[in-house]
Amino acid sequence: MPRSLHITSLTNPRIKQVVRLREQRHRRKLGLFIAEGSREITRACAAGLPIVELYHCPELLDQPGRHDSAAINRLATGLPADALVAELPAAVFRKIAYVREPEGVLAVIPQPTWSWDDLPAAATSPLCLVTVGIEKPGNLGAMVRTADAAGAAAVVTAGAVVDPFNPNAIRTSTGAVFTLPTIAASEAEAIDRLTTLGYRIFASTLQQAVPHTDVDFTGPTAIVIGPEDVGLADAWLAAADRTAGRRVHIPMHSRTVDSLNAAAAAAILLFEATRQRHR
Amino acid sequence: MPRSLHITSLTNPRIKQVVRLREQRHRRKLGLFIAEGSREITRACAAGLPIVELYHCPELLDQPGRHDSAAINRLATGLPADALVAELPAAVFRKIAYVREPEGVLAVIPQPTWSWDDLPAAATSPLCLVTVGIEKPGNLGAMVRTADAAGAAAVVTAGAVVDPFNPNAIRTSTGAVFTLPTIAASEAEAIDRLTTLGYRIFASTLQQAVPHTDVDFTGPTAIVIGPEDVGLADAWLAAADRTAGRRVHIPMHSRTVDSLNAAAAAAILLFEATRQRHR
Repeated sequence: MPRSLHITSLTNPRIKQVVRLREQRHRRKLGLFIAEGSREITRACAAGLPIVELYHCPELLDQPGRHDSAAINRLATGLPADALVAELPAAVFRKIAYVREPEGVLAVIPQPTWSWDDLPAAATSPLCLVTVGIEKPGNLGAMVRTADAAGAAAVVTAGAVVDPFNPNAIRTSTGAVFTLPTIAASEAEAIDRLTTLGYRIFASTLQQAVPHTDVDFTGPTAIVIGPEDVGLADAWLAAADRTAGRRVHIPMHSRTVDSLNAAAAAAILLFEATRQRHR
Repeated sequence: MPRSLHITSLTNPRIKQVVRLREQRHRRKLGLFIAEGSREITRACAAGLPIVELYHCPELLDQPGRHDSAAINRLATGLPADALVAELPAAVFRKIAYVREPEGVLAVIPQPTWSWDDLPAAATSPLCLVTVGIEKPGNLGAMVRTADAAGAAAVVTAGAVVDPFNPNAIRTSTGAVFTLPTIAASEAEAIDRLTTLGYRIFASTLQQAVPHTDVDFTGPTAIVIGPEDVGLADAWLAAADRTAGRRVHIPMHSRTVDSLNAAAAAAILLFEATRQRHR
């Protein structure tokens, strides 16, 4: 049985710490993240991630159409002895809740830790997505979801401002960030590692690029998507030339727009790779 | 020269009307929308849409790194005589601004009006995207952008809760909603019209569907994307069977996720169609 307590004060140190977990630097320092709502928590549990703190609010949970407190109690009693279960009044729960209409249950969970060792060897011809300079957590989560759907082995976030355990990234990933390795690195480190590991770098660019349907994505493939406004730095283009990858572009047939958003470009390139790999 | 005035009151009726244009029902009633910021306004002008009211705030515009008032003055003096140009103090401009850090310029513009007549004849083998039951304006805008990039002739929004002239939809479309015909209809009307016009309906579903890379998207193609949670209604699947279209699915190779988000699915299907049409 886990430890159980009631917290009634908005200024309780645990409450303050949960609120701070909305910030990337606190998540990184503590190696924790928050999963809110029964669907997200269930996904995290299914991924084998252990709950260390569970906060619930019977007042909110017992509202019509919400999950019942009994289910949460079953989840709570199944937690290990060193976990913490805390019951909160609605006013305190709303303080830690990230969503506007909280369901009444929130968990604090250790982040899975991944490293370059989680990238499969080039000899197995893996598929990998590299997102460069991504600024919006919702976009990052959406791309991790798409990468998972395409059968990618990992996502490298190079020079990212956001992390995959931002609450919005978790939500738009529909849980993919719980299981798909995501590796944060500087752009220089990412280029260096991918090259050393033997990946072919496919840099999405308009500079001297070939149509994405004309390149071979069946080898050890790193698809690199840059920031929409400025595009990829020259170092990525040079890496594409050097690694037997290619500079690729998605041909446009538009009347107005001159580019795709990063998540759409990732989806198109990843599923072109998937099409080639499974035909 | 357009009429020019200073508005200083937060309760000015014009100010109130601009604020109301954030709501779909007011946009629809008045046939107007708001474009905020010089980039969006420039795109609307490039699309041939006439500005009827231009609101600007020298205080905000003259901040470092912002567009200068002189450029706005040139735009303003080029407007026709029946347009209105109003200068606002920052407090009043912030009330009409939609974005958090307003640039200091906002235009009221008549919505382009499209109808089923804007859908090309089936004989020309057009490509068309149909989004069903879409709830998030950002998603709708992103899909209109992707459809434009893929060379689609139009987007049909069937049973949509949001409209393409929602400020968030305009923003994520990067101006595609200014030029690509978007036609709102009930689901029943959309099925009826597309069928009558001779389109082949390709319904995205998991029910008795074939992989998207195995179907022929080169004819008169309507790609139909349903709501993520509930999927497409049976009427769409029946329409696919009846119109020489297909029920299509995008094969998943995931470890965790069981679906793609609607915008990613639209991108993958539209660009598979584009691949087939331009090889």
